[in-house]
Amino acid sequence: MKNIKVSGRLLEVPASPIRKLVPYATAAKKRGIKVYHLNIGDPDIKTPEVMIDVLKNWKDNPIAYGQSQGQPKFLESLVGYYKKLGYSFVESKNIQVTTGGSEAISMALFAVCAPGEEVITFEPYYANYNSYSKINGVKIVPVLTKGETGFHLPDRKVIEKKIGKKTKAILICNPSNPTGTVYTKEEMEMLVSICVKNNLFLISDEVYREFVYDGKKYFSILEYMKKYPDKMILLDSLSKRYSLCGARLGMIVSLNKDLTDGVLRMAQGRLSSGYVDQAMAEKLTEVDDSYFKAVHREYQTRRDLLYKGLKSIPGVYLEKPEGAFYTIVKLPVKDSEDFCQWLLEKFSYKNGTVMVAPAAGFYGTPGMGKNEVRIAYVLNVQDLEKAIEIIAHALVEYNRK
Amino acid sequence: MKNIKVSGRLLEVPASPIRKLVPYATAAKKRGIKVYHLNIGDPDIKTPEVMIDVLKNWKDNPIAYGQSQGQPKFLESLVGYYKKLGYSFVESKNIQVTTGGSEAISMALFAVCAPGEEVITFEPYYANYNSYSKINGVKIVPVLTKGETGFHLPDRKVIEKKIGKKTKAILICNPSNPTGTVYTKEEMEMLVSICVKNNLFLISDEVYREFVYDGKKYFSILEYMKKYPDKMILLDSLSKRYSLCGARLGMIVSLNKDLTDGVLRMAQGRLSSGYVDQAMAEKLTEVDDSYFKAVHREYQTRRDLLYKGLKSIPGVYLEKPEGAFYTIVKLPVKDSEDFCQWLLEKFSYKNGTVMVAPAAGFYGTPGMGKNEVRIAYVLNVQDLEKAIEIIAHALVEYNRK
Repeated sequence: MKNIKVSGRLLEVPASPIRKLVPYATAAKKRGIKVYHLNIGDPDIKTPEVMIDVLKNWKDNPIAYGQSQGQPKFLESLVGYYKKLGYSFVESKNIQVTTGGSEAISMALFAVCAPGEEVITFEPYYANYNSYSKINGVKIVPVLTKGETGFHLPDRKVIEKKIGKKTKAILICNPSNPTGTVYTKEEMEMLVSICVKNNLFLISDEVYREFVYDGKKYFSILEYMKKYPDKMILLDSLSKRYSLCGARLGMIVSLNKDLTDGVLRMAQGRLSSGYVDQAMAEKLTEVDDSYFKAVHREYQTRRDLLYKGLKSIPGVYLEKPEGAFYTIVKLPVKDSEDFCQWLLEKFSYKNGTVMVAPAAGFYGTPGMGKNEVRIAYVLNVQDLEKAIEIIAHALVEYNRK
Repeated sequence: MKNIKVSGRLLEVPASPIRKLVPYATAAKKRGIKVYHLNIGDPDIKTPEVMIDVLKNWKDNPIAYGQSQGQPKFLESLVGYYKKLGYSFVESKNIQVTTGGSEAISMALFAVCAPGEEVITFEPYYANYNSYSKINGVKIVPVLTKGETGFHLPDRKVIEKKIGKKTKAILICNPSNPTGTVYTKEEMEMLVSICVKNNLFLISDEVYREFVYDGKKYFSILEYMKKYPDKMILLDSLSKRYSLCGARLGMIVSLNKDLTDGVLRMAQGRLSSGYVDQAMAEKLTEVDDSYFKAVHREYQTRRDLLYKGLKSIPGVYLEKPEGAFYTIVKLPVKDSEDFCQWLLEKFSYKNGTVMVAPAAGFYGTPGMGKNEVRIAYVLNVQDLEKAIEIIAHALVEYNRK
């Protein structure tokens, strides 16, 4: 009897560099070691109480399907949110609720590309773009950005050189996961201009919109959406903004009707996003501004601490991240994946160790990022200080091997 | 300035026949008409209180990401569920939690087929298979089954004739949505034998496992999984079993390690299923058997009422459904889509109308199912009686036009 094989494309879906070392972390915890999780953007910040109260006061039964586009009240809340940001042109009909920002990215790639077509993005980029592109038969074409320039964009020519017949879109994450870069007005206008000139979609993943530090000004794709309604696609999510990672809710916002009609048909296939999650999320209009201010202050403090702490470790290189809560850090190691695994398997300091994500999985070009890691500063200041101390000691011991 | 077009494949994703008439239903409701929803399998049965209590007693904050494979406690509950069914060989590692049964189907199609490869299924079939196959670049090859034989399988030769070089799997839904058919032991063994002989996957969507009437015996794919560990793939969901449609939770169960490893990597890309939903769902082991007995009794009563009521309408044809809570009904109309829309747009009886799903969208062969509808008997007996009365009057008036 012959054994049947799964498809080649399944075998090619990459493991998440953020999650593939989880078994080593689990084993370390079993040995009684405290693992400081800097590998994943899963914040310790509290979800707003007004959302948790929805659960505590739950009345509905049964837990029924929602609308495929999103629950009407949740859509209304989102319209209110974008209006408050100054984009009152966004209507309910321009929004498709997705099951996490993940589904928004995946649907957008499917929507803009035929199989084999290409999307340009800037490496290092959010690692899961590799899974979504593989799953949707889309080719990611990376344009390199460098730590030395804070991972800001290269010259227009460098980007345009990558545009070919199969290119359908440029995809950015702004503020950037994994680099913490916040694109300037000039950069945004350059990207818009490239997309207009070359007839491409501009897809902007803005799930960290509120996480911009040092009073830097932020330019959303929404600034350009009315002028270029066919080309601009916003991807968004509540996960980080309201510390709602486990409530799988994101959204696609676009004025391109073929696009929103199409993703609604895709959404009908999977029926609806979570009913309870949306009931919680519709309270977003009731979240007080003081919540965001406190969260913002907390992250800026963490960022400052992390930057100062890491910079003081010999051989470690990073630029000060401008937004989000990640940074790509160069370490004095040859193979950061080996180092990350060693941290979990072999090392501990004061009975603790650190889990960070090897950066190679955030690059599209093979061989890049080998001596880098992505760090998510999602822990409180005390834990972050301990984690930095552990990294400092670990590098000394690792390099003595 | 040129306008950019979305991908051709996005334009080809079909609208759900279950949901595409929703705008007409909304308009009818705005006119003050009560719409009886027999279009969608969204039960009115209560979710078990032990699950709702999880919300009421909620303590966790923040709402964080879960594990990509599924929350450990939820996986443990599922192992307990399959053990109670008699399949104690199913371990945690054989289960991938998915965001709804929808994601389970979509991932399975991706996993077994390269782009352009084929999956054989029996029409009429669950309409959303069309979306998932389009999204995953898979071709659905339909084999016709007929109302006159209760939509049971045709001869082995008829099925084997459809197997070609590109065929990778046979996909069934058992008990069947949309036909209510429950496959016999002989049918299941024939399918297993065809798959073994032709080296194909057998994918069984068993989300209605508990809904089998008249004491008929049920044969799960789990019966054959240990013997053919590489070929058998179970798709499952909590939506119907616990009236948890809005908690988007399904699962893939397989002993094929390449498959479960691969779908876990896909799952890592979308991070996790809902945290709150899984917390509710892990209570499934605490749901008393009396819950299922009451639900089963209720559906069997509804089925009997619907069958008798519809059969008494002149020109209406249906066989008694054996399971699930759907039936495909032939109506004395030429174009059931026109009739369904007319019901919502133009007709009312005692200020009420009925929404049902045109059956053409449940067929793969163009032209089939034109005079059929799918009816979901998910309303209480009183409402169901009213709905049948409405259909009877509507057919008279529609055919007088």
